[in-house]
Amino acid sequence: MAPLVIAPAPVSSERVQQQLHFLSEIDKLKCVLRATRLTDDSRRENSAEHSWHLAMCAVVLAEHAAPGTDTARALAMTLVHDIVEIDAGDAFCYDPAANVGKQERELRAAERIFGLLPEDQGASLRQLWEEFEGGETPEARFAVALDRLQPLLQNHGCGGGTWRRHGITRNQVARRMEPIRTGAPPLWPFVLQVLDELEAEGVFSSESPAGT
Amino acid sequence: MAPLVIAPAPVSSERVQQQLHFLSEIDKLKCVLRATRLTDDSRRENSAEHSWHLAMCAVVLAEHAAPGTDTARALAMTLVHDIVEIDAGDAFCYDPAANVGKQERELRAAERIFGLLPEDQGASLRQLWEEFEGGETPEARFAVALDRLQPLLQNHGCGGGTWRRHGITRNQVARRMEPIRTGAPPLWPFVLQVLDELEAEGVFSSESPAGT
Repeated sequence: MAPLVIAPAPVSSERVQQQLHFLSEIDKLKCVLRATRLTDDSRRENSAEHSWHLAMCAVVLAEHAAPGTDTARALAMTLVHDIVEIDAGDAFCYDPAANVGKQERELRAAERIFGLLPEDQGASLRQLWEEFEGGETPEARFAVALDRLQPLLQNHGCGGGTWRRHGITRNQVARRMEPIRTGAPPLWPFVLQVLDELEAEGVFSSESPAGT
Repeated sequence: MAPLVIAPAPVSSERVQQQLHFLSEIDKLKCVLRATRLTDDSRRENSAEHSWHLAMCAVVLAEHAAPGTDTARALAMTLVHDIVEIDAGDAFCYDPAANVGKQERELRAAERIFGLLPEDQGASLRQLWEEFEGGETPEARFAVALDRLQPLLQNHGCGGGTWRRHGITRNQVARRMEPIRTGAPPLWPFVLQVLDELEAEGVFSSESPAGT
């Protein structure tokens, strides 16, 4: 297989320095906390370990993507999809206030962070991120489906987790999970099964929290 | 590109259940702590976020692998290389006592954890891990090189980090970094540059710690 990111220019000292600087900078993603908790409920998950988990979902569940999906590209998307959060922070998906101005913050972050890389490579990674955000290609649809599935596994693992804590309704979660139906169709019955189970356990709130 | 893991069998409910069970189980890698610290020195790094960082190294530095290296396969190796630590724990590479019995512990862990997956897929991922451990193929040599480089970036970022704390000598680090020379040759000058810089800052001990 060809490398995921192809360098047209010959290797230069400056090029390697830029790459290593970027790789040092993204260490900061380990300090960005998500609302989701680990399955042992010991602490909140950070966006770097979440991205690894998502990449593992892309490896293990590759066979459930729509036929013709370039799953290696989808995997690369899972790795870069949250990097902008280093500057923009993670916005809890069920909190409308936290999501105001999110797109603008993330665009500025993409500009700065992917801008640390050599130009061709920064543009490639930024394109991966934009494609993920767009959610239109088969690769993006599959990667987005996994990004919805992984918190389902986390919340299932710790008895409802964030959903119980924040008074989220089943309808809210079902809407949020919707991309799995088209992005990874064979997984959809398992999503419904988990939602049924959590509903039977009384995880979901019967009313939307204020503002949603 | 073809999917990284190809399923020969038709999708069955049991197959998906096994895959989701494996994906929930590996959440535990987020609780395995390494000796290495984050670049802001705020805490120790865990093996899940380290694996993400390594995968990003594989994406960004792919062009520095030896010609003909299947960098997508090397990337998959970085994702699975530490999963056995869920059972076997992380052994600090400069601590011989912690490394006694490591291989046996990791083999048992591989048996159990990859054994949670459908058989064909468990065998594929286990093979990736074994290939990484063997360090013989171009893909493994590249992935191992990155696994040495990433702690260099971390320790460089926090003024010597683990090496200063544990009284590690420059020679010990240089020996540990050696796989970079052959696994990712264009990066070797930058390794020497960082070691020179850290030596000038007085990071390294002049004598080996007891037992090494």
